[in-house]
Amino acid sequence: MAPPTAARMKARARRGQSAEALATKQREISISEFFSKNRHLLGFDNRRKALLTAVKEAVDNALDACEEAGVAPDVRIEIEAMRKDERYRIAVEDNGPGIVPAQVPKIFGQLLYGSRFHTLKQARGQQGIGISAAGMYGQLTTGKPMVIVSRTGPRRPALRYQVAIDTARNRPEVTGEKEVAWDRPHGTRVEIELEGRYHRGRQSVEEYLKQTSIANPHVDIRYRGPDGTEMHLERVTTELPEAPLEIKPHPHGVELGRLIKMLKETRARTLGSFLRTDFSRVGEKAAAAICAAAGLEPASRPGRIARTEADRLIEAIRTVKLMAPAPSGIVPIGEALLLRSLKSEIPEAAFYTACTRSPAVYRGNPFQIEVGLAYGGALAADDLARVLRFANRVPLLHQPGACLITRTLVATDWKHYGLAQARGALPTGPLVVLVHLASVWVPFTSESKEAIADYTEIQREIRLAVQECGRRLRLFVSRRRRAADAEKKRSYIEKYIPHIGQALQDILALSAADRDRTIRDLSAILEKSRKMD
Amino acid sequence: MAPPTAARMKARARRGQSAEALATKQREISISEFFSKNRHLLGFDNRRKALLTAVKEAVDNALDACEEAGVAPDVRIEIEAMRKDERYRIAVEDNGPGIVPAQVPKIFGQLLYGSRFHTLKQARGQQGIGISAAGMYGQLTTGKPMVIVSRTGPRRPALRYQVAIDTARNRPEVTGEKEVAWDRPHGTRVEIELEGRYHRGRQSVEEYLKQTSIANPHVDIRYRGPDGTEMHLERVTTELPEAPLEIKPHPHGVELGRLIKMLKETRARTLGSFLRTDFSRVGEKAAAAICAAAGLEPASRPGRIARTEADRLIEAIRTVKLMAPAPSGIVPIGEALLLRSLKSEIPEAAFYTACTRSPAVYRGNPFQIEVGLAYGGALAADDLARVLRFANRVPLLHQPGACLITRTLVATDWKHYGLAQARGALPTGPLVVLVHLASVWVPFTSESKEAIADYTEIQREIRLAVQECGRRLRLFVSRRRRAADAEKKRSYIEKYIPHIGQALQDILALSAADRDRTIRDLSAILEKSRKMD
Repeated sequence: MAPPTAARMKARARRGQSAEALATKQREISISEFFSKNRHLLGFDNRRKALLTAVKEAVDNALDACEEAGVAPDVRIEIEAMRKDERYRIAVEDNGPGIVPAQVPKIFGQLLYGSRFHTLKQARGQQGIGISAAGMYGQLTTGKPMVIVSRTGPRRPALRYQVAIDTARNRPEVTGEKEVAWDRPHGTRVEIELEGRYHRGRQSVEEYLKQTSIANPHVDIRYRGPDGTEMHLERVTTELPEAPLEIKPHPHGVELGRLIKMLKETRARTLGSFLRTDFSRVGEKAAAAICAAAGLEPASRPGRIARTEADRLIEAIRTVKLMAPAPSGIVPIGEALLLRSLKSEIPEAAFYTACTRSPAVYRGNPFQIEVGLAYGGALAADDLARVLRFANRVPLLHQPGACLITRTLVATDWKHYGLAQARGALPTGPLVVLVHLASVWVPFTSESKEAIADYTEIQREIRLAVQECGRRLRLFVSRRRRAADAEKKRSYIEKYIPHIGQALQDILALSAADRDRTIRDLSAILEKSRKMD
Repeated sequence: MAPPTAARMKARARRGQSAEALATKQREISISEFFSKNRHLLGFDNRRKALLTAVKEAVDNALDACEEAGVAPDVRIEIEAMRKDERYRIAVEDNGPGIVPAQVPKIFGQLLYGSRFHTLKQARGQQGIGISAAGMYGQLTTGKPMVIVSRTGPRRPALRYQVAIDTARNRPEVTGEKEVAWDRPHGTRVEIELEGRYHRGRQSVEEYLKQTSIANPHVDIRYRGPDGTEMHLERVTTELPEAPLEIKPHPHGVELGRLIKMLKETRARTLGSFLRTDFSRVGEKAAAAICAAAGLEPASRPGRIARTEADRLIEAIRTVKLMAPAPSGIVPIGEALLLRSLKSEIPEAAFYTACTRSPAVYRGNPFQIEVGLAYGGALAADDLARVLRFANRVPLLHQPGACLITRTLVATDWKHYGLAQARGALPTGPLVVLVHLASVWVPFTSESKEAIADYTEIQREIRLAVQECGRRLRLFVSRRRRAADAEKKRSYIEKYIPHIGQALQDILALSAADRDRTIRDLSAILEKSRKMD
């Protein structure tokens, strides 16, 4: 060990600091400071990823806005190189409803501001962080504010703004607001200049857009890359997916602290009506049963319920049987569409199957799992299986190792379905596995929304869906194996029968006609016995 | 697909919502609301993990406080079952400097409040989230506030507080403050009642404490579990580790946005003195070189530097060679201590090695990687290698798949070092790998600080340290293999020589003495030839 330096000696002398000395260092941390120091939490770990994340946040927002307004989304993405491999300008434009001027600053220039955090409904965005974070990253790395153009209707002007974030206070700073000419009757355009690095192939913007198209066949995507690459992913249907409905929380997912807060804030006059109106799936009968089990009067005032009584209420809720949460908050892709997507994205496979599970619940949140498999054909047989992960129709391209989906697939015994698999690894073989989680609230492992966190209930549903598909795969694999065996036998028969025929002719002195008839009969018999094996 | 329900039809009708209608739903989200909904981000995914996370946050805080005050830490942890498998009360007590009354509410009742976020210095806590989050989780699940007892000196009273968080506003609510009798002259005690589940073995509180003891030999830990388990991990040394010094940011890690902010906020009067005083490793000469390369006068006022000039400054900084960041902000465990820890924790191995790399830099932050290996002996030969991960002396027990450490170990070619390894998996064999990252700022993948994020520079250092240890391992493995081969040959010799001797005696009619001499000579010759192989 090196001898202590003078500086270290000083540090030692400074030790024995009193509580008072330590107290002077305590400070508040603004959420923007926090995320600008921790920008990898938001997906801005490095230049390649930063470019993708910024595009992703803008596109996810565009799709959510269009769908909420009932518009079939037309999204354009352009990436321009300002300095190759170093600085890019991205622009994402949609035909959505636009944003009213008063909301623009906060939506783009303040972290933790949004419309979806306080609701239970399937959406791509949920945190109110993504797009402001992308803007903040741009500002941090290039010093330039975001540029927003938005128009809310054909008879209203298109307005252009420059939006920056005051990170020390997490507040927007808007400059240069002005009217501009724009050919769109309504929509929003977001431009961010940022440090980034453009690439193609795995985990690229292109791959993200292609996978987005798989899970969103109602979306039309036009893309132009900095190298001149153009791509048009046309919509396959003009019909929007069912609109998910906002739902109330389910009692089985409510914790004591939240219940106490809800009791304080409810507008309901009685405990009974509180249970019926502030929760989903609680009717007259269930409310009465809960109150009875908790030893509380349905007529009591919610605001008067004490902590210990609330605790009894939670216990009671757990004992009363309730319908599962209404699945109206979630809209899966559906088996038919999943199959179609798989076949169009991976046309080289020989076998396809898909399974959409019934809705289930974790922590009171309804969710639904879908799994699709593509197998065999011209897929590479010596590689690890390829996994496509989606959450609320958004492809997840990073952090597979952190994701419950990957972990569940690794923990699945694929040997059972006829595939090779090393311990602690994905199966090896010509296989693509697609897993989609749709939920009113997706539990991501970080704010960058790249991986799904460990919830036993979600893992269970993934496992069941994989098993369902796996069983079908096993049938296919074993049928194909039997077919291969049969084929082998058939080829033996075809190979040796003529020789046998020749031998018989020689031994028994048959005519050519007799020989051929004998061979035909013999072939038929052997073929029959082969089939009966 | 199910026919649209009445509710869905209504939702459809509601579509075509105007920008105005959508705007009414936008809301601010408080950071406490955000984390209480996303509590898995903080490590409170499930009951088992919640119990561990709460203990961990309290212990990490206790150790930081003691070390900052120059006190050899004495930490007591008690877990009491309130309702088995459901509700527990944890208490963590230290002999640190205590906390001044004015700071107690914010430290325990406000997220994003702390002393270490704005400094560059190795510490366990860095975000100002952990302990408040643990309290918030307790409050959320049991409705009970945290209880804090703190005393800042023998002649001051010990004070007891109940601290809760107003989650909608992220502000503390303190009740029931009073003086209490306490036998400690100074220190802090934290009590949290929470939903949890107690277990032993992997990822348990006990395992966390044992691993903590490995990386912190100066700490004395006493533990009592809810099942009566008692554990005393005695300190091995009373000498505290070197105290890390707070350092200034290194110019190579500074991004444009931050530079602009620093230029605005500096107290320096000239650009030259700004570069020298607000950064580490910039002397007179380097400052002049940077200014020259940027085409700026060293005498210019920092506040007057325009965005484009700052941009040139960043470019200039990149071209000027600077000393690596001062490593005084970090204090590694050290090779000697690492070896000792490995030998005491894993006494059953046959081979040990450790490597502490020189400090390196990612995004301007100095860091240092240490790797230790234990191999062979009585370690299980058929299992995947066991990995012990540490960041700033804190054991990381969860999310191995998300961690750069695991990924780097998986990407290492262990066959090269004589171990078996399946593609995409850890090596198989009697191996334990310990990896420690010490840094002034550890880039975790989430606020729960369970896994290290992907930074190329960190990955490179882990790889180099693993290679260094791997090469030593290969020597050992191949030497052992040669020894095993030799042993085999020797046993052949020992087995057959007597028979040969007997045969020679029969054939040549030797005396017993001659026979024995012949056998001795023969053995010697064969042994010699064996060694020369």
